Amino acid sequence: MPPRNLDPDPHAALAESWCENARAWAAAVRDGAIESRRLATDEAILRAALERRPRRILDLGCGEGWLARALAGYGVDAIGTDASAPLIEAARAAGGGTFICASYDEIAADPGLCGGPFDVAVANFALLDDRIAPLLAALRQALAADGRLLVQTLHPATAGPPYEDGWRTEDFRGFAETGWTPMPWYFRTLGSWLAALRQTGFTLTGLVEPVHPETGMPLSLLMEAAPQ
Amino acid sequence: MPPRNLDPDPHAALAESWCENARAWAAAVRDGAIESRRLATDEAILRAALERRPRRILDLGCGEGWLARALAGYGVDAIGTDASAPLIEAARAAGGGTFICASYDEIAADPGLCGGPFDVAVANFALLDDRIAPLLAALRQALAADGRLLVQTLHPATAGPPYEDGWRTEDFRGFAETGWTPMPWYFRTLGSWLAALRQTGFTLTGLVEPVHPETGMPLSLLMEAAPQ
Repeated sequence: MPPRNLDPDPHAALAESWCENARAWAAAVRDGAIESRRLATDEAILRAALERRPRRILDLGCGEGWLARALAGYGVDAIGTDASAPLIEAARAAGGGTFICASYDEIAADPGLCGGPFDVAVANFALLDDRIAPLLAALRQALAADGRLLVQTLHPATAGPPYEDGWRTEDFRGFAETGWTPMPWYFRTLGSWLAALRQTGFTLTGLVEPVHPETGMPLSLLMEAAPQ
Repeated sequence: MPPRNLDPDPHAALAESWCENARAWAAAVRDGAIESRRLATDEAILRAALERRPRRILDLGCGEGWLARALAGYGVDAIGTDASAPLIEAARAAGGGTFICASYDEIAADPGLCGGPFDVAVANFALLDDRIAPLLAALRQALAADGRLLVQTLHPATAGPPYEDGWRTEDFRGFAETGWTPMPWYFRTLGSWLAALRQTGFTLTGLVEPVHPETGMPLSLLMEAAPQ
């Protein structure tokens, strides 16, 4: 069983973890230390975004900015946002996109905060909170009429029991470096993802499930959703 | 790894298995020998169907007819269809609905074969073939404009690798009786289910995932889809 998170305020601990882990995270991403990303999930999200032939992309929870940089390399105007100031600093230092330090609450309160309309909004392993409806509703507004939302997340086939919505803890033990601050994150069942999308005005239009070449098990669930 | 099925004509073997296993299957269903059905999946499909307050339901692959009988108990006009003549015979003997012996190919060729329009069409662990698009397209036509398709199937979290579309073999080893004829069945990823629904004119509107009370793992995936 994965460790359950019983923090009375997981939202604050989640936000803090991305400041405390910023340096280690940027190094892990840039060094290719995360096997699933190296094997499949980085390419999956990049390919899904480019398939829409986008001119303008919003990269939510962009972290140190690798995806925005990769998209910029294809001539896409990429806007990255993250609530972690040190991660945005690292993204700006590397360049390749426009990077805005903003929380999801701030974007939910002002859907035009990052510009738009966007052809694609991406949340690549970046929807980790239990309260996502206000952000999704804001993205619905920030998207072009024929735009797409792309959400990549943990595949339910690999999550382990209990199969129910709830806070869990990521301790980063599978990563190369030590000294990480544990991160609370909210596991969501398939049904819960679909309900959240539909309640905020989206239709699920596609699912990509990259598979590990050796274990044969899915490495992620990549949802594509369109405004209803 | 689950056994892969390498039968050169799995379609014929699938159809034959439901004739050869008809007596054992009817006994297993009627005696409550299948734990997942007893624990959760029977109730899940019945509840999902009744939530639509239906007057007329099509029960595809109805087998010995338990679901049609249960629905008839709620005053629903239930039409059950199955390609297995001995199962339809068992369903008719028990009564409680109208039972038609017809293959999916026959229904696909004549969507009005079973009557309609239907408020709900149900396929409860009954879409076991690789070619489901012609049947789904026919159901799309047989449904009322505000009707719903309900498909209950194996949950991808419990399928085991390789996570890819393909024929597998059910040997019924987990069941009470011995002497079953192995059944070829086609495993479909989540993305493949969604693509099949969308290609045939359906939008995925809901997912129910009943969970085993002890293991905490999902016992099934129940998809609800609406005509686009």
